[in-house]
Amino acid sequence: MTYKKVILDCDPGHDDAISIIIAASAKSSLDILGITTVAGNVEVDKNTINALKVKDLLKLNVPVIQGAARPLVKESEIATEIHGESGMDGPVLPEPKSQKEEGHAVDFIIDRVKKADGKVTLVPTGPLTNIALALIKAPEIKSDIEEIVLMGGGTFGNWTPSAEFNIYVDAEAAKVVFNSGIPVTMFGLDVTHQVIATDEIQKRLAGINNPTAKFVSELLIFFGDMYKEHFGMSGGPIHDACTTMYLLQPDLFTFKHVHADVETKGEMTYGETAVDLLGVTGKPANTKFAYEVDQEKFWNLFENILRSYGEE
Amino acid sequence: MTYKKVILDCDPGHDDAISIIIAASAKSSLDILGITTVAGNVEVDKNTINALKVKDLLKLNVPVIQGAARPLVKESEIATEIHGESGMDGPVLPEPKSQKEEGHAVDFIIDRVKKADGKVTLVPTGPLTNIALALIKAPEIKSDIEEIVLMGGGTFGNWTPSAEFNIYVDAEAAKVVFNSGIPVTMFGLDVTHQVIATDEIQKRLAGINNPTAKFVSELLIFFGDMYKEHFGMSGGPIHDACTTMYLLQPDLFTFKHVHADVETKGEMTYGETAVDLLGVTGKPANTKFAYEVDQEKFWNLFENILRSYGEE
Amino acid sequence: MTYKKVILDCDPGHDDAISIIIAASAKSSLDILGITTVAGNVEVDKNTINALKVKDLLKLNVPVIQGAARPLVKESEIATEIHGESGMDGPVLPEPKSQKEEGHAVDFIIDRVKKADGKVTLVPTGPLTNIALALIKAPEIKSDIEEIVLMGGGTFGNWTPSAEFNIYVDAEAAKVVFNSGIPVTMFGLDVTHQVIATDEIQKRLAGINNPTAKFVSELLIFFGDMYKEHFGMSGGPIHDACTTMYLLQPDLFTFKHVHADVETKGEMTYGETAVDLLGVTGKPANTKFAYEVDQEKFWNLFENILRSYGEE
Amino acid sequence: MTYKKVILDCDPGHDDAISIIIAASAKSSLDILGITTVAGNVEVDKNTINALKVKDLLKLNVPVIQGAARPLVKESEIATEIHGESGMDGPVLPEPKSQKEEGHAVDFIIDRVKKADGKVTLVPTGPLTNIALALIKAPEIKSDIEEIVLMGGGTFGNWTPSAEFNIYVDAEAAKVVFNSGIPVTMFGLDVTHQVIATDEIQKRLAGINNPTAKFVSELLIFFGDMYKEHFGMSGGPIHDACTTMYLLQPDLFTFKHVHADVETKGEMTYGETAVDLLGVTGKPANTKFAYEVDQEKFWNLFENILRSYGEE
Repeated sequence: MTYKKVILDCDPGHDDAISIIIAASAKSSLDILGITTVAGNVEVDKNTINALKVKDLLKLNVPVIQGAARPLVKESEIATEIHGESGMDGPVLPEPKSQKEEGHAVDFIIDRVKKADGKVTLVPTGPLTNIALALIKAPEIKSDIEEIVLMGGGTFGNWTPSAEFNIYVDAEAAKVVFNSGIPVTMFGLDVTHQVIATDEIQKRLAGINNPTAKFVSELLIFFGDMYKEHFGMSGGPIHDACTTMYLLQPDLFTFKHVHADVETKGEMTYGETAVDLLGVTGKPANTKFAYEVDQEKFWNLFENILRSYGEE
Repeated sequence: MTYKKVILDCDPGHDDAISIIIAASAKSSLDILGITTVAGNVEVDKNTINALKVKDLLKLNVPVIQGAARPLVKESEIATEIHGESGMDGPVLPEPKSQKEEGHAVDFIIDRVKKADGKVTLVPTGPLTNIALALIKAPEIKSDIEEIVLMGGGTFGNWTPSAEFNIYVDAEAAKVVFNSGIPVTMFGLDVTHQVIATDEIQKRLAGINNPTAKFVSELLIFFGDMYKEHFGMSGGPIHDACTTMYLLQPDLFTFKHVHADVETKGEMTYGETAVDLLGVTGKPANTKFAYEVDQEKFWNLFENILRSYGEE
Repeated sequence: MTYKKVILDCDPGHDDAISIIIAASAKSSLDILGITTVAGNVEVDKNTINALKVKDLLKLNVPVIQGAARPLVKESEIATEIHGESGMDGPVLPEPKSQKEEGHAVDFIIDRVKKADGKVTLVPTGPLTNIALALIKAPEIKSDIEEIVLMGGGTFGNWTPSAEFNIYVDAEAAKVVFNSGIPVTMFGLDVTHQVIATDEIQKRLAGINNPTAKFVSELLIFFGDMYKEHFGMSGGPIHDACTTMYLLQPDLFTFKHVHADVETKGEMTYGETAVDLLGVTGKPANTKFAYEVDQEKFWNLFENILRSYGEE
Repeated sequence: MTYKKVILDCDPGHDDAISIIIAASAKSSLDILGITTVAGNVEVDKNTINALKVKDLLKLNVPVIQGAARPLVKESEIATEIHGESGMDGPVLPEPKSQKEEGHAVDFIIDRVKKADGKVTLVPTGPLTNIALALIKAPEIKSDIEEIVLMGGGTFGNWTPSAEFNIYVDAEAAKVVFNSGIPVTMFGLDVTHQVIATDEIQKRLAGINNPTAKFVSELLIFFGDMYKEHFGMSGGPIHDACTTMYLLQPDLFTFKHVHADVETKGEMTYGETAVDLLGVTGKPANTKFAYEVDQEKFWNLFENILRSYGEE
């Protein structure tokens, strides 16, 4: 079997952490070239520390490289309301023993894509600043990127009525990505709000007895409380996990090929992904838009993944 | 029983015509002060002729007054793709015998609202140009308007990925209306796409034997073909009919009280209604947003209304 | 000699008042059909009272009709910083004896343009709300308008770095006017900042001994102080006066025929008039843009006008 | 005497080339750390070749490093209308013998600023993409940048009615620069249109007999013809030269300290520098805005500089 080479670009983040855990479990199908961090839910320094903590927890042998501390054009936006002060509040992990690599995430991405034997899949689950910077600095890497599998956007928003947080934080970067010509597979709120870790789900996972599963359970409790409080939802949607679940088992999701672009000018729609579901623009499809997930299969696979950590 | 005083402001239009037919059937509950026309699906002159034709068909004794020939700020937009050259293609009605009244719809609206004994409900089912002009010219009428029950907008679009036609044609007018302080009841695409006159519905209605029902059947055939062709849908959604069905039986619909505003600046989101379903803006609700309809009850009532024309 | 028929649409306003005084002096060349008022420097009610006061002072036999109390789309903007609470602070005139006419300025403009024997020149010196509303409500009057001679805009701003007050207050209305196809003669800040009533000018005018000239002198003192304080200028530019001075003696000014349009979307440029001085857009000229005035001739004529009131 | 350390970031370009020539003449006051190139007048590859040609002509011992091939967010814009196919049409220089350095301009800028003994002055005379990318990638270098001395913007435009070419090409990058907190000295069209190489100036310079002066003369002939043809001006304004002339002799220019920002949203004002000359925003000054030049002194110094190349 051939490995799929991936770079996980993230701002962990509860659901980012879970996304890494899913990817790391797929030892026989995914080759994680590195984990790059970006400012997003909290400052990039904190996100890097969180990524290192997860790396240590998983005894993962992949480099962690820090990236952009700010969006391309606008001021930073921080979401401690949802993820807490550390960006990953809830479970208490020891301070990281491993260290971030030298250099900047943008150069790491460019370098690894250029050097890779075969194409690389980028998996951004935070704002798209690093990915956009790489494409601006080295447009020649486009043809060596297999796909950009991202969490972001949707036909409705969670940060403004029209915009989802990741895209809102750096809509200009998102615009660069969606217009790059590289195939985009998009997991927006339409589908991520279908994978809510309800109390029932939480109970089911709580029974799994290994440190990774326990860590996930604690993440879900904190994250779920935040979502209940802020959005009146029945738990936290593990948004970012959709990206790596898709890499493991694409047929969990139903897609529509559509044109999508990003609004960067609007007065109240900045950061909206304009997804052309009815095909009214006449523009060619650039995006595989996930709109449905088989929830039963999703949680079954998710449970199996967490159980797999018990056999280590 | 007290009558609800209404002004039907429209651009007939297949579904506008149906909306008038519904209102006109409610002789014991609605007092139609007038039908005003606006540029929209086609030019205002054609819309006025179509309104007069419907008036004659129904032997309706209400004034028809022509209104704005163009939007507030931008150029006119015409939708002959959906409604045909006449704006109401399909059934052939005789040229109107009745005539439009003198004067401009804007002044008619201002005058009738001011003179009415009690408050008036405005029911716009086209672009909101006339309503906005009335509010700009005579802001003092606001307190005498009970409610603006409109068809327009939604969380997705049918003219651009983000904008519905009525709002797109005159987003500035829509902005004036949503920010007027007058209660808005909004029937957007989220709910109007739930009332599709499918082949099955068309068959059911085809059995009703009176001129009004036959006219409606012919409208639905043409309209449905257009929707099948352009949007790949199973028939035409009778968008505008939701407004007057609501006036007759409000509990057909489920609502959420939300803040809504209109984007007039965006590059690809001009004319979007930004509906704050998750309450992220913290702004007070100004809109009763219809998001669900009881389809069975809707079509039963609709069938009864058409049958009622047979007993005249 | 033939009379030029004009409607003065204004928000008096120190320089609006002066503009009326200039027009009223030209008994043998201008036929003032009416003075219409609009919200601008202050609320429309106050502007109407100020217009009536000026009418009484001049014993002018022309109707004053009140117009729009708010801009087309955005919220009202009030400039008491420059014109004081009353909108015309400084000189104390008695409360008006004459009264405004019934009806709305928009209808007055439409009606007089339609009924006039020959074309009518509109002379707006406030926000363009009334003019735009007339063109939206009755597009058919366009061919009967000789010219729109306006004070507004410029290549720089006085309310924001890019926008002049009159255009900023209702940029959407201005957009309608500049795109109407009617010839526009534009007196923007580029030229109006060349007619500053400096202390020297004030002294020169102070010597004229009639009530109108005294009123003007008092206006200039208050207005000048405001400009010295707010903009560090050497006196108040009598912006609006350029319009009527032009009607009396067009060759006071030098013009360039250019394309001009109005920005209504920008984040920091809302209300800017984009004047294509270098011809880079390739769009046809729609505007006679005044960029220079013969200051000596201007003030000589102005002095003569004020002196002419002494011979009444 | 202490050297001022500078990096010349450019898209040569006729006036960029002249700007380099001016800087290179100042052997006792300027330390040119490097010349970085950016896409602008033409593609970045061509600009790099042009920079190398100028380097060879001047026997200049400084590294040339290629930078961004595209703007941050929008599509590239090319101006062969003004600079010809090569980006520096007119004089024929031999193909460059020297070569560009490895690496990307962005990293060169970051590296040299970090390593420099003392602060560095950045002198961009093209679109601001490289500078912005450096500030986004390494915000920590801000405190080590003395000043950004740029050619761009103005209170009017030459590419659109409101926008100058350099800013228009990458308005988002310009926004990053103006909002960086680093002191900006801005030479916009207001002042660069005062240094036009008219026929008279061209004649005067044509008398200088050395290869550099001859090269400049040929540049000015081609460039001047383009400006006469496209803008009806009396010759080419040597825009970019203002930046390095300022470094040599700051008192050639008169400045106003103002707030300036960049419009990135407007419909017809994208890329405008909103320069707050009247101080209406109340925002603190971030820009030294050059608005006047002593033309006599400017051309005298310029002539002396060209003559100095004859003494090599």
